[in-house]
Amino acid sequence: MNPENSQVVIDLLIHPKWIIPIEPTGITFSDYALAINDGYIVDLLPYETALKRYLPHEELDLPGHVLLPGLVNLHTHAALSLLRGCADDLPLNSTLSRRTWPAEARHLSAEFVRTGTLLACAEMLRGGITTFNDMCFFPTAAVDAVHQSGMRAALGLVVLEQPTNYAADADDYLSKGLALRDTCKDHPLLSFCLAPQAPGTVTDKTLEKIATLSAQLEIPIHTHLHETRHEIAEGIKQYGVRPIQRLHTLGLLGPQFIAVHAVYLEAAEIDQLSLTGCHIAFCPTSNLKLGSGIPNINDTHQRGINFGLGTESAASNNRLDIFQEMRLSSLLTKGISEDPTAFTAHQALQAATLNGARALGLDQRIGSLLPGKAADLCAVCLDDWMLQPCFDPASHLVYTTRRDDVTHTWVAGRLQMHNGLPSNIDIHQLSAHANIWHNRLAY
Amino acid sequence: MNPENSQVVIDLLIHPKWIIPIEPTGITFSDYALAINDGYIVDLLPYETALKRYLPHEELDLPGHVLLPGLVNLHTHAALSLLRGCADDLPLNSTLSRRTWPAEARHLSAEFVRTGTLLACAEMLRGGITTFNDMCFFPTAAVDAVHQSGMRAALGLVVLEQPTNYAADADDYLSKGLALRDTCKDHPLLSFCLAPQAPGTVTDKTLEKIATLSAQLEIPIHTHLHETRHEIAEGIKQYGVRPIQRLHTLGLLGPQFIAVHAVYLEAAEIDQLSLTGCHIAFCPTSNLKLGSGIPNINDTHQRGINFGLGTESAASNNRLDIFQEMRLSSLLTKGISEDPTAFTAHQALQAATLNGARALGLDQRIGSLLPGKAADLCAVCLDDWMLQPCFDPASHLVYTTRRDDVTHTWVAGRLQMHNGLPSNIDIHQLSAHANIWHNRLAY
Repeated sequence: MNPENSQVVIDLLIHPKWIIPIEPTGITFSDYALAINDGYIVDLLPYETALKRYLPHEELDLPGHVLLPGLVNLHTHAALSLLRGCADDLPLNSTLSRRTWPAEARHLSAEFVRTGTLLACAEMLRGGITTFNDMCFFPTAAVDAVHQSGMRAALGLVVLEQPTNYAADADDYLSKGLALRDTCKDHPLLSFCLAPQAPGTVTDKTLEKIATLSAQLEIPIHTHLHETRHEIAEGIKQYGVRPIQRLHTLGLLGPQFIAVHAVYLEAAEIDQLSLTGCHIAFCPTSNLKLGSGIPNINDTHQRGINFGLGTESAASNNRLDIFQEMRLSSLLTKGISEDPTAFTAHQALQAATLNGARALGLDQRIGSLLPGKAADLCAVCLDDWMLQPCFDPASHLVYTTRRDDVTHTWVAGRLQMHNGLPSNIDIHQLSAHANIWHNRLAY
Repeated sequence: MNPENSQVVIDLLIHPKWIIPIEPTGITFSDYALAINDGYIVDLLPYETALKRYLPHEELDLPGHVLLPGLVNLHTHAALSLLRGCADDLPLNSTLSRRTWPAEARHLSAEFVRTGTLLACAEMLRGGITTFNDMCFFPTAAVDAVHQSGMRAALGLVVLEQPTNYAADADDYLSKGLALRDTCKDHPLLSFCLAPQAPGTVTDKTLEKIATLSAQLEIPIHTHLHETRHEIAEGIKQYGVRPIQRLHTLGLLGPQFIAVHAVYLEAAEIDQLSLTGCHIAFCPTSNLKLGSGIPNINDTHQRGINFGLGTESAASNNRLDIFQEMRLSSLLTKGISEDPTAFTAHQALQAATLNGARALGLDQRIGSLLPGKAADLCAVCLDDWMLQPCFDPASHLVYTTRRDDVTHTWVAGRLQMHNGLPSNIDIHQLSAHANIWHNRLAY
């Protein structure tokens, strides 16, 4: 491949000021370059060496930028972007039972999901997110939107017992979801999770079926778990045990299991999640905003549980912005532990990239800049006068920059966001569609 | 002034989509206009009526914007912008004793303060901040920068016992500060606070002198208080009582007193601050980031203590961004109280405007859009596609928008920021100067 005195032809050589590869851990390279070919990372090496070794079709100099892996949003309901801020500052029972759920029930349709998901994809690409873990009804419409956007996604096939506009019962949700998975099985950017909505809305029988399917098909399980005190109390009332214990008994916990929220964990439960190899998707903004509580990121981190960061939906955040979640996770962890060294900037960056990928079973493919992985990347400009001075690009990314400073987002080597705009989405048309939904919803 | 059938000539009529006047509380006006003349607010009224009543030299239509009072940053050390992020993720004793303080001691000079303060003013104007409450050495250099920027500021005249490059002892700090105040007494945008650095660095004798001067000269006192457990323990060790009790005994607590941080307050201390009419400047990002703890905004709020929001310096934040502090205060308060209705968006907006002005004794002049007040304003565009849909502009400001969405900042009727740039600051030159300091500091 690389005989002496001959250069290897590649698609793209990116030469930013700094590169944070996530693997190896805690490193920032200066004056390195990333070589990309056919959608994959070929090499990460000093720029001077790269010039000798590679002959790129395109060379991109980013003299004030830091390049890092694309961010992973480990939990969202992309379609609910159309409900952004529709129930702020209201009591939780009003929020969900009087506003969000009725709006969902009345308006939920394939068209709602297509527009809402496209809006979410555009927003996420704008902020350097290349992969998201979704949970949605009408996943076929979500697939349309994700495919158009060019993003990578794990689509959570929602299962619950109650009927909705989308499906009649648990078996109907499952069979519709699995049929879609079958249709999409060769899609290079899509994967799927089984997504029992929450322990309280799914029976033991359905959960056992999901555990079996997950093992047979080798796909992750993605569910809301221990988000509120109320949920746990209701679980105990109905089943005699806390929800985590129930899921453990039913065989769901394991390395294919992603618990979303996990705000309330007893020490023994942290041990249980750790020993079974489960993953957590922390969504701190949503937990705070809904008054659910404050997730204990520090203990989870120290116990070695793998966790990523999620935005939840725009109905409870109201931004699909992993920069905010990195910043907030790090600040909360330091504040609660009263330790400014807790959950460092590099650790937050790893949670938002590699650890999210690992939870989805995608860490061999994405999440760091190791050669052989897909070229899912974002570049962030640290040159803006408002960000001066910069002593450390890693801490600048977490504590100082905004997602607005993201200048380029690549998925599998394709530039899917640049100059503030997604490559394959007509923003004017999308805004107009969002506005139509706004007028329908703002009754 | 306004005889029938004749229109009053004014300088400017602003007609945004929405106006949030802060007074009356909790209101958002649609299709209203704000009439401005000679730097003051003349009227706030329906747009149709305004067209009949006023003949403006300039009319400004802002069809996708919300107009609100300029934000008040109730605590910062503007000059330390030059130390932005210089000691992130380090233990607190390292942060301060090994990095920040030595850097300050070695490099602190009038030139450092001038450049750092100008950088801070530019950043604050960019994000809709029109007034800040500073604490700095070399305040004459800070006055130069503030005057150039066109901002309004309360300059905290630092007092401590220890010598620095700036002054030799407490009396020297005081006399230098008061001489500057005398020089600037007719400046329309400047006011002053007496700023004992912290109880631990100032003797009883000096604090008593400050209490007397504050009463004689009718200027506020602004000090760090109960920021960390360590500070309180040291205070007890040295003086036998907690710092708040000591300051109370020395006569400092009262309506002219602004306690910065107040992370650790016992119930009796909250009562004491409330009964004496003290104000608090909460700086939640800094408290979390330094591992100091989590301020109890909820109890303070419920006890009726007036409080505003501060950024602290860029050395511990790292953004001088009141949008972040509004969002974080509201999220933290909801999360800790487990109540999503706690500290609503309107309450956060009031803390960041009128309540900050009240703490500084400036609430008759700024902080809301009542006619007669100075036209300190900011306009925020909610039209960006990433912010769609918008159901409520007030909650959008706190939970969804970024300071980057601020399009205009006026101080006393003058447009001091527009198109992302401050009116009176050469950003290229400023960046170059900041870069010189960065190179000196990054030893």
